[in-house]
Amino acid sequence: MSVSTSSSSSRTLKIGILGFGTFGQFLAKTMIKQGHILQATSRTDHSQLCDQLGISFFRDMRAFVEADNDVILICTSILSLSEVLKSLPLNFVKRPTLIADVLSVKEYPRNVLLQVLPEEMDVLCTHPMFGPESGKDGWKDLTFVFEKVRIRDEETCSSFLQIFESEGCKMLEMSCEEHDKAAAKSQFLTHTIGRVLSEMEIQSTPMNTKGFETLLQVKESSVKNSLDLFSGLFIHNKFAMQELQNLEFALGKVKEKLLKRMEETSLNEPKL
Amino acid sequence: MSVSTSSSSSRTLKIGILGFGTFGQFLAKTMIKQGHILQATSRTDHSQLCDQLGISFFRDMRAFVEADNDVILICTSILSLSEVLKSLPLNFVKRPTLIADVLSVKEYPRNVLLQVLPEEMDVLCTHPMFGPESGKDGWKDLTFVFEKVRIRDEETCSSFLQIFESEGCKMLEMSCEEHDKAAAKSQFLTHTIGRVLSEMEIQSTPMNTKGFETLLQVKESSVKNSLDLFSGLFIHNKFAMQELQNLEFALGKVKEKLLKRMEETSLNEPKL
Ligand SMILES: NC(=O)c1ccc[n+]([C@@H]2O[C@H](COP(=O)([O-])OP(=O)(O)OC[C@H]3O[C@@H](n4cnc5c(N)ncnc54)[C@H](OP(=O)(O)O)[C@@H]3O)[C@@H](O)[C@H]2O)c1
Ligand SMILES: NC(=O)c1ccc[n+]([C@@H]2O[C@H](COP(=O)([O-])OP(=O)(O)OC[C@H]3O[C@@H](n4cnc5c(N)ncnc54)[C@H](OP(=O)(O)O)[C@@H]3O)[C@@H](O)[C@H]2O)c1
Repeated sequence: MSVSTSSSSSRTLKIGILGFGTFGQFLAKTMIKQGHILQATSRTDHSQLCDQLGISFFRDMRAFVEADNDVILICTSILSLSEVLKSLPLNFVKRPTLIADVLSVKEYPRNVLLQVLPEEMDVLCTHPMFGPESGKDGWKDLTFVFEKVRIRDEETCSSFLQIFESEGCKMLEMSCEEHDKAAAKSQFLTHTIGRVLSEMEIQSTPMNTKGFETLLQVKESSVKNSLDLFSGLFIHNKFAMQELQNLEFALGKVKEKLLKRMEETSLNEPKL
Repeated sequence: MSVSTSSSSSRTLKIGILGFGTFGQFLAKTMIKQGHILQATSRTDHSQLCDQLGISFFRDMRAFVEADNDVILICTSILSLSEVLKSLPLNFVKRPTLIADVLSVKEYPRNVLLQVLPEEMDVLCTHPMFGPESGKDGWKDLTFVFEKVRIRDEETCSSFLQIFESEGCKMLEMSCEEHDKAAAKSQFLTHTIGRVLSEMEIQSTPMNTKGFETLLQVKESSVKNSLDLFSGLFIHNKFAMQELQNLEFALGKVKEKLLKRMEETSLNEPKL
């Protein structure tokens, strides 16, 4: 793992966004602000929004891949990745292109991309560790994780990374496996606790402590993300199951200690 | 339940703190700043610290109760309440005194105090919903819950409440039972999750999301409180057990949903 601080030169890129949902749109706004040229395709027709943003929207996947992209940026849900890639007519991509993804798990897209992409395509796996909520006031000091899985065209790759570097992101190069290990213990756990609190329907009380206020926030932000995203974090990160078990086990331990203490207390407390 | 905003007159009080641990010391500092006269007693010898603060410390409980207090403020742990009260020589209290407590559960001390105190003593049950951590920059806008359980000397009671009002606390009058119901769903739950995260030994990663950062905080602050305090929240709040069960149940539900989704996905995902 290494924190990179290079401030390499950058050029204007033609970026084709594949999957124009919440997160694709969120990224697109900053890329446009930086002067890059954007095109997009998605399952749903987002052409109106794209019109407003100055992005060419393609309903047809073939037209999208033929539209001369420097980078194809995969922003679909984790769960739909293989389906989406299957329907992508890769043989119509005109020239070597950088294929990058932003999925919140990393080993899975890495493996899938290496399996389906022609050898001449470069592969960059990334995870911006922020979203529309945490990144609403800019991306400064927010973490951008990436692995250069197969890069020959260094210039295009570094121009793409420059998008995040120039916004002040903390650039963190690590293997996809390292990412997944740490993400299971942090991001997946956070989402799980948020979903559990949501399942409990916790609500603000007139006497919230500061600690409880932060739990309310964790709940709110986890349910703002799609259930597909949360499911993807679990299903396609091989370390997540263990983390879920650790959580269950720890809760069991805490309960056990409380019950034991309760028993001791009822034996020892003086009768008044 | 009502939010009170009265700004009644106040006078200098002689306050005897029973239990001079973390929280008793924390409260004492503000009371001294306001000009009240403090005395204290405790299981442990805190006389050196008391000397520094200008508080008379009594090793002897009888001398403490004879020392002419307007208010005796109980700041012992929840679990030691009945033991401490048993050793308090109430027959040596010289005159009607306001007995107040700050325990983080409320029905339990209310019942115990009504049971053991002579009829002529006034009883005020309170819970400042903050501590040395959350209240380190002052008490403004932090919640102070109280029930006037048995008050005849209104003036002393309101002078005591004024300590918190004048610091800007949100004064919240509610029954001890209402308090315990809401506290189980908020404060106890927060401490439980903090303890679970501590049991899991969660740690900062190089790629923390903002959400995970807040979980780290919840963990840190819950373990700063004593295990006695946490155990007391559970053992002496009749609503806490249900809340612990709700948490377990919700975690089971979330797990079930994830496993179901995982199964569906492995059936539906196209082979590449
Ligand atoms: N939200 C965040 O904070 C965040 C942060 C970092 C990374 N990410 C990653 O970014 C990606 C997008 O996240 P998101 O927040 O926008 O929500 P998401 O629910 O994970 O993904 C929504 C996107 O997936 C597409 N999609 C879903 N099912 C599909 C299917 N069966 N066939 C084709 N396309 C399908 C949607 O297309 P349509 O819009 O056309 O329906 C939309 O573009 C995910 O991989 C996520 O892990 C998200
Ligand atoms: N900490 C907070 O943020 C906070 C906030 C609101 C309310 N409260 C309440 O304030 C009270 C004190 O809390 P705390 O944080 O100081 O920690 P705690 O562990 O709940 O209580 C420590 C106090 O209890 C005394 N004590 C413990 N066991 C005893 C025993 N067997 N016999 C006699 N005294 C015993 C200690 O005396 P020695 O020091 O003499 O050993 C010390 O004064 C608790 O009822 C708590 O619920 C705490």
